[in-house]
Amino acid sequence: MPSHNPSVNITQVVEWQDGQPRRFEDYLVAEEPLEIRVNHSPLTVTMRTPGHDLELAAGFLLTEGLIEAASQISALREGTANGNGPGNLVEIELNGVRLDREQLQRNFFAGSSCGICGKASIDAVRLRGLKRPDPNFNIDPKLVCSLPEKLRAAQAIFGRTGGLHAAAVFDQTGELLAIREDVGRHNAVDKVVGWALLAGKLPLSDCILMVSGRGGFEIVQKALAAGFPVVISVSAPSSLAVQLAREMGLTLIGFLRDRRFVVYAGENRCVAHRLR
Amino acid sequence: MPSHNPSVNITQVVEWQDGQPRRFEDYLVAEEPLEIRVNHSPLTVTMRTPGHDLELAAGFLLTEGLIEAASQISALREGTANGNGPGNLVEIELNGVRLDREQLQRNFFAGSSCGICGKASIDAVRLRGLKRPDPNFNIDPKLVCSLPEKLRAAQAIFGRTGGLHAAAVFDQTGELLAIREDVGRHNAVDKVVGWALLAGKLPLSDCILMVSGRGGFEIVQKALAAGFPVVISVSAPSSLAVQLAREMGLTLIGFLRDRRFVVYAGENRCVAHRLR
Repeated sequence: MPSHNPSVNITQVVEWQDGQPRRFEDYLVAEEPLEIRVNHSPLTVTMRTPGHDLELAAGFLLTEGLIEAASQISALREGTANGNGPGNLVEIELNGVRLDREQLQRNFFAGSSCGICGKASIDAVRLRGLKRPDPNFNIDPKLVCSLPEKLRAAQAIFGRTGGLHAAAVFDQTGELLAIREDVGRHNAVDKVVGWALLAGKLPLSDCILMVSGRGGFEIVQKALAAGFPVVISVSAPSSLAVQLAREMGLTLIGFLRDRRFVVYAGENRCVAHRLR
Repeated sequence: MPSHNPSVNITQVVEWQDGQPRRFEDYLVAEEPLEIRVNHSPLTVTMRTPGHDLELAAGFLLTEGLIEAASQISALREGTANGNGPGNLVEIELNGVRLDREQLQRNFFAGSSCGICGKASIDAVRLRGLKRPDPNFNIDPKLVCSLPEKLRAAQAIFGRTGGLHAAAVFDQTGELLAIREDVGRHNAVDKVVGWALLAGKLPLSDCILMVSGRGGFEIVQKALAAGFPVVISVSAPSSLAVQLAREMGLTLIGFLRDRRFVVYAGENRCVAHRLR
């Protein structure tokens, strides 16, 4: 199977265990650059795991604030590089949207009257017009604890490489709606958001985003762009991610393992018990 | 201590364990944007953990191929944003180097006559003139197995947040020369490389780079720029990282845990036993 899977490569390696070397064939997560072109101009290059490239490109444009709806996309296709067959290229044509690469950087500065800082980064997210997620969406802590096992089961195919990050969308009953994997954490999120965008499912205001890595500022920003009220990670969030989640009313959960998790923001959505 | 440490914040959170909620104070890794300005023009913004910002900026310029030596830096200082005190800003002045932001992207395309792909990314690294690391630097597998414990011990201060990546420089005897931590894997590497650059220790041709995260293409590229012959990670490498390491003669080790590791490239440097 992996030989037909562009996301996985096989290679011969040497294992050392207790001082003894042994040759074997190992699975590697594939990593290749992808160029995203908008209206025939290069916008960005990202190192990603091949697969779901159209979703990645569409999701990237949405989560970075360059588009707000699928209706702005008039064409979306895998490009060929100089006629040499399918390349690591996605071409997007947008209706009535003028873009330049600088805009990606300017998002950081937009709200800043006194230089760049965490506060300015949060102001920039606000100025993008991102809405506060649905305040009436609640989650049951028992359901939260059931998600890691579902994520692991869905990741089984790729688990062998040990090198992939996953992003998954669960509904309020804990059903897995979509999962995407990538060597880059941000790419995995862009892929599931792109899936929702292209399937007409945005905003995901009654869904949970679960990520296998850390919950940093950019992950929370991307989740807000897609309308998620809850972000769960199996690892630690950063200070700025927590600050952004609190200011925007998003529930941010970290360190979800077995029957334990930590709520860093929006604890009001956990409704099984009253807090002591 | 953490209240005086700009890399760590404290905040109140809620832990759920076995269905029971409990409030407590938790440590968070700090994340803030840093702007790097070169010759008075903005070059890039990176989300990083505050601390060692000058090293981060200098290391970034070197590992991304914008400079080759500390002598090209005529001034390096923490900037203030509009006179409002220390900001998240580093200003660098370079001698005889003309830079623009586009150059960062162009590094991907430099060697590409047929579009962008993994091969073109590797060609671009070659065209930057990066040298093959010293072929005579060898490592003892026993020494390799001793490094995780040393890394953990050195990380103890920050270990409580669970959110930091580490990059460490070890010499051939296994002595820890420098360690830097950051919410971003690439930033941690740029900080140790920046340390070496500013301390006049480049190239690090008799040292080992150890990273706490995955060994991706960009980590190997940065290691080559600093002259490391060996890169060790505790997790998985990507296909393109392995390909680049093999083509450039760098030893790439992954999944180093306890008394086991996997050599993905440059196995000839492991000299304790002959391979069966």
